[in-house]
Amino acid sequence: MVALTHMIDSEVFLAFSTYTTIVILKMMVMSPMTSYFRLTRKAFSNLEDTSLTPSTDEEQKKLVRVDPDVERVRRCHLNDLENIIPFVVVGLLYSLTGPELSSALLHFRVFVGSRLCHTLAYLLPLPQPSRAVAWTTGLITTSSMAYRVIRTTFYL
Amino acid sequence: MVALTHMIDSEVFLAFSTYTTIVILKMMVMSPMTSYFRLTRKAFSNLEDTSLTPSTDEEQKKLVRVDPDVERVRRCHLNDLENIIPFVVVGLLYSLTGPELSSALLHFRVFVGSRLCHTLAYLLPLPQPSRAVAWTTGLITTSSMAYRVIRTTFYL
Amino acid sequence: MVALTHMIDSEVFLAFSTYTTIVILKMMVMSPMTSYFRLTRKAFSNLEDTSLTPSTDEEQKKLVRVDPDVERVRRCHLNDLENIIPFVVVGLLYSLTGPELSSALLHFRVFVGSRLCHTLAYLLPLPQPSRAVAWTTGLITTSSMAYRVIRTTFYL
Repeated sequence: MVALTHMIDSEVFLAFSTYTTIVILKMMVMSPMTSYFRLTRKAFSNLEDTSLTPSTDEEQKKLVRVDPDVERVRRCHLNDLENIIPFVVVGLLYSLTGPELSSALLHFRVFVGSRLCHTLAYLLPLPQPSRAVAWTTGLITTSSMAYRVIRTTFYL
Repeated sequence: MVALTHMIDSEVFLAFSTYTTIVILKMMVMSPMTSYFRLTRKAFSNLEDTSLTPSTDEEQKKLVRVDPDVERVRRCHLNDLENIIPFVVVGLLYSLTGPELSSALLHFRVFVGSRLCHTLAYLLPLPQPSRAVAWTTGLITTSSMAYRVIRTTFYL
Repeated sequence: MVALTHMIDSEVFLAFSTYTTIVILKMMVMSPMTSYFRLTRKAFSNLEDTSLTPSTDEEQKKLVRVDPDVERVRRCHLNDLENIIPFVVVGLLYSLTGPELSSALLHFRVFVGSRLCHTLAYLLPLPQPSRAVAWTTGLITTSSMAYRVIRTTFYL
């Protein structure tokens, strides 16, 4: 981890920035998607939100309910948080350890690809084990980067 | 994204640090607030937690329950995670692309302001669409920074 | 916050990288642990996931259910997200403010230790207030670092 200051200008860091922004944008899309399903399925979690859809007072109380499609999008979103954030944190530190560009690109591409597959498999949904495979692939990719960070920076 | 190493000492990065820490502290406050509501509303999610409030064994089992006020704080907290973390990640990369100070400050201030309004609108609660507007404003701000990051660093 | 570019090569940053990676790996372990409990307790949240365990069509529908052990792991995981991510973000900025190595190591070690205790206390589970103490310790550690960041970088 010598000369970290040079790394931040490198192609590895540019690639990290691009892939991270893509995968974060993918995660952000889950928010409006949840809103869309809440509005079309008329399933809200707060009483005040029911005013966003035309209905009488009596009907509004019934709209505070759980809908399976909304819950599916929410689970997918939470899974993104649980997996994409470790990737971003570990990937940033990994980029600063001065890896080979080809090796870094391989990690970034496999991870972003695995999360796109995971979202598709979750929302369509595709039969298992497609989602399990996508999720495991992402987990292994992040672990592989974490191994390099620990090995390079080890300082307890 | 030339001379990134200079950027990290810049006023943009100082401003990013300050606004990020403020918005992260705001998010962290949701944790003790959840605990406060759990203790005052006597609504816990684990049996062992009921010992934190004086009660008999018989009563304790009834305290493992869901309370609407606790759930409201928890939903607000999860919404923070879903929106503030993308801001922090994208904002860090954005700060390193060398934006105009005025433009960066505008993004940071609008985002932090929108999240403070969002929390107020969620917890009071204020009538919709106040919360929806605050949430959308934050989403657009982060997307605008993400657009600049992708345009500046593009490397696939 | 002068000469930030020197800080990124420092022992403080190496220590930050190591402790952050350790605590992120700990958080990542919660994902396969949830899967393990879902498979052994036969409690799934998606109908398509029930095909991962041998069962007839009739049985499969009954496997989409909530299990207390699975929910415990999930709550622990969400608590990790709510606490570890603020540590990582604030810790990164804190590392760039040029703190004393001894002071930085103290913060990192106390935080990582508190989260390991928190996970043990949540999953065994240990009687309260062991988990409450571990959680509060982590919160105070992150707040202490946030205070230094705000004081050093203050730029609104």
